[in-house]
Amino acid sequence: MKKLVTGILLFFTIHAFAQGLLPSWNEGPSKQAVLNFIETTTTEGSPQFVPLTERIAVFDNDGTLWSEQPIYVQIAFTFDRIKALAPKHPEWKTRQPFKAVLEDDLQGVLATGQKGLFELIAATHAGVDTETFRGIVEHWLKSARHPKTGRPYTEMVYQPMLELLTYLETRGYKTYIVSGGGVEFMRPWTEMVYGIPPERVIGSSIKTKFEIVDGQPRLVGQPELQFIDDGANKPVGIQERIGRRPVMAVGNSDGDREMLLWTTAGQGPRFGMLIHHTDDVREVAYDRDSLIGRLNDALDLAPSKGWIVVDMKREWKEIFPPQK
Amino acid sequence: MKKLVTGILLFFTIHAFAQGLLPSWNEGPSKQAVLNFIETTTTEGSPQFVPLTERIAVFDNDGTLWSEQPIYVQIAFTFDRIKALAPKHPEWKTRQPFKAVLEDDLQGVLATGQKGLFELIAATHAGVDTETFRGIVEHWLKSARHPKTGRPYTEMVYQPMLELLTYLETRGYKTYIVSGGGVEFMRPWTEMVYGIPPERVIGSSIKTKFEIVDGQPRLVGQPELQFIDDGANKPVGIQERIGRRPVMAVGNSDGDREMLLWTTAGQGPRFGMLIHHTDDVREVAYDRDSLIGRLNDALDLAPSKGWIVVDMKREWKEIFPPQK
Repeated sequence: MKKLVTGILLFFTIHAFAQGLLPSWNEGPSKQAVLNFIETTTTEGSPQFVPLTERIAVFDNDGTLWSEQPIYVQIAFTFDRIKALAPKHPEWKTRQPFKAVLEDDLQGVLATGQKGLFELIAATHAGVDTETFRGIVEHWLKSARHPKTGRPYTEMVYQPMLELLTYLETRGYKTYIVSGGGVEFMRPWTEMVYGIPPERVIGSSIKTKFEIVDGQPRLVGQPELQFIDDGANKPVGIQERIGRRPVMAVGNSDGDREMLLWTTAGQGPRFGMLIHHTDDVREVAYDRDSLIGRLNDALDLAPSKGWIVVDMKREWKEIFPPQK
Repeated sequence: MKKLVTGILLFFTIHAFAQGLLPSWNEGPSKQAVLNFIETTTTEGSPQFVPLTERIAVFDNDGTLWSEQPIYVQIAFTFDRIKALAPKHPEWKTRQPFKAVLEDDLQGVLATGQKGLFELIAATHAGVDTETFRGIVEHWLKSARHPKTGRPYTEMVYQPMLELLTYLETRGYKTYIVSGGGVEFMRPWTEMVYGIPPERVIGSSIKTKFEIVDGQPRLVGQPELQFIDDGANKPVGIQERIGRRPVMAVGNSDGDREMLLWTTAGQGPRFGMLIHHTDDVREVAYDRDSLIGRLNDALDLAPSKGWIVVDMKREWKEIFPPQK
């Protein structure tokens, strides 16, 4: 009887509150499911109540919090950086994969494969200390513009997700990014854009080395991969950094499959959600056959695992924040 | 003039408050320095004010927060675990380094070197999933006792440091452990004992692998070292996990040297502190020649770097918490 009363009270509470919450989400199954989950896990007395310290929500970044089309933002950064450094490297004019980048020949870059891509990462992300690299990223973000919309990349974030991140924080959830993107590429701006501080950003990384140069200690990026935070490595990164299983996981591609599996297999209330890119007018529609952000296996798994699939076209009133 | 007034106000504030703070610290240079630093960095209007998000304090664990004598607690755990597993491994009776452990022959174990030690770690820390390992550690801690005092290891913590950790938290500092100890060995108890949650524990680790067994996802420890969080790797671990330079660092051995160098080389107010084990009656006196927790280079560096050196014998009124 007590449970029933709590349930009825909760229903009316949710209904009353939901009116003003997540305003960029249309009323529909995804909004209802996520509000219901947050409400029941954060209301004392609810049978689904989750203690404050366990309220951990993990989010993929590319394609989940910001746009990954027509190309990952970090790739755009890498290409721009190669061009900026090219005057100091005349040999790049005739050497792949650099030549292809300088000629805006994306197919040529892709033809050099993972080896080529790693050479580009090493040339642009390694060899500088972490504080210098932070400055380079910040400087680039100020001038770089999305090729289609002409907006700064930090405005190519999903307004409905910003609202969700903020609402989770107000309900005591700690939000984390768990992304295949480079951790030091994200940290300079995630706090300003998402309210997620550096210590809650988990990503891919190159090795870092402690050095003392002219009496000053520095941490210098090395041309060696350390961790690719994608697929089966995402739960590994979560365990290493957080040391607890999240209660909520949100992604948009097969690279998020294991993160959602790990999260939603835990005991007690768990929530898995996939952002499905269905809007070819306001953004880009892509899923099973996309080279970037392919969503195939995870989409097939969603119904049996109880994961919510957000139909961006139908369920999101706005995609991006208003122009500043 | 405004600075002078602020300074005078601060002096009286500190003086008044200091009476009741850190009760297990004797009045002396270390207590005065640490209280002064916390007060000036957390008082708005102070020229040394540090914003809330930057208030990060990192602590070594073994020998800094709890006792590391006569042997690191994790080694005691490892040896006990070998003995518990021995019935399933009859071959250990004649095979080193296991034979030496089963015969309580510490010299024999040490003679097998790093390779031997790693074999012991692999046999006791790998091959189980992280949640099972957590249970093993918790179970062991309930029955294990310190060989000299007969107290549970979780009571062999330094009372003055518990008071410091608590006070830092009340002043908005986020405390982290940065230890050479295994991260999954510490996480099960650091929140209960120190108030430091799993996501703020940085330590050494073996590789972890995501597997699906009988339809259930698991994270299973592998017999392969991933990260040794000691010496020059400590600032690397801090950058990877926290992504900000700490404001305060506290250690007790040469393994903390680079962490203190990195922390105190930052701009603005910074605080480095070394716990010097000088009390042969209430604990163990050791420094330059100790196999465990050697403090030599870092002790030499302290004066020129402005690091505070805590003389445990003279400056700590109590070493351990009262018996429960």
